[in-house]
Amino acid sequence: MWEFEEMTSEEVALLRRRYEPLTDSIRDLIDAALRTDAGDEVVQRATTALDEVTASLRNHQRTGTLGMNLTPDGESVPWGNLGNGLRNPLAPPLVVEYDGPLAAHIDVDLGAAYEGPPGHVHGGYCALVLDHLLGEVASGGSIETVAATGTISLRYQRPTRLGRLRVEASVQKTEGRKIFMAGSIADADGTTVTAEGLFIALRQ
Amino acid sequence: MWEFEEMTSEEVALLRRRYEPLTDSIRDLIDAALRTDAGDEVVQRATTALDEVTASLRNHQRTGTLGMNLTPDGESVPWGNLGNGLRNPLAPPLVVEYDGPLAAHIDVDLGAAYEGPPGHVHGGYCALVLDHLLGEVASGGSIETVAATGTISLRYQRPTRLGRLRVEASVQKTEGRKIFMAGSIADADGTTVTAEGLFIALRQ
Repeated sequence: MWEFEEMTSEEVALLRRRYEPLTDSIRDLIDAALRTDAGDEVVQRATTALDEVTASLRNHQRTGTLGMNLTPDGESVPWGNLGNGLRNPLAPPLVVEYDGPLAAHIDVDLGAAYEGPPGHVHGGYCALVLDHLLGEVASGGSIETVAATGTISLRYQRPTRLGRLRVEASVQKTEGRKIFMAGSIADADGTTVTAEGLFIALRQ
Repeated sequence: MWEFEEMTSEEVALLRRRYEPLTDSIRDLIDAALRTDAGDEVVQRATTALDEVTASLRNHQRTGTLGMNLTPDGESVPWGNLGNGLRNPLAPPLVVEYDGPLAAHIDVDLGAAYEGPPGHVHGGYCALVLDHLLGEVASGGSIETVAATGTISLRYQRPTRLGRLRVEASVQKTEGRKIFMAGSIADADGTTVTAEGLFIALRQ
């Protein structure tokens, strides 16, 4: 279904050492730039400096997207993924922790850049995180059985406050290639959004 | 329901002139950093330069998030919003164009930073964009009748290719405070995801 580039574990480690600090710096920059009150002079100097950095990075630029890499151990490495990409500054990144083979959770701290309604997480990002985690657990954390979203339904009980969130998902049942999933998001005051999804196992 | 800061149209124009070029530069940086093949020396120099820019912006930093501003004309200004925030580098930003009072569309070009499956849009971002547009059209583009997502259901027909997308949404019917919405996403080859949503009109 999807194409993967192969890479050794040593290559993965090298690239993580090289590029993760850069990605983290950009995540920090995003928050600083979004919330700065600096005046014209500081902002113009910042913009010029950033454009110089961008030019230096574009001197050595791949043409396509990053896609996924696979190590000989069968470990997949999500470089560019919007949810969990190690090199994607838009990803918090989401880190999935398994609670047995059929359930998992994500703990994530969402700041100003994930805002929708004032002080709250964009409702669409709640959908994104739930789709991400339900799909991950439906795939069983394995690259051999990638599961694609068929349908997902979300029920918003109340707005989700920015800050620390717990996202959970578990397999409810399977029927042939159909995997029925459920999940939820909670902020400090309890559950805010619940989700049900039907995922389809794809052969790799 | 939500709090808004008031701001004159002149203040809005001043802030857009000051901060939009910075935000655009960071959007470009994100793509360059994600797809660079540069080696250790270039990447380390870039990281140091970025940390200096971040420090200069943090010298003048607001404590909270940006929320929304409202001009005396009743125009709302989405500074920080994850979908359409003018100052949010994570927002493409999404720009809604109305096709009459009950329907609207978004044309948007999504690059490498929005990837899920290799070469394709993260399924969760499809959900995010649809939630964003359905909610916007349910609110009628007006700040007086904000509509909150009650439920949203998404059906994924096939993966959505990165590149130019057309997202559409329209009001199907209303019953009291309930607003029934429908929408879809299409890539160059046609419809990829459809959505139905129930939104609740909140009094402001």
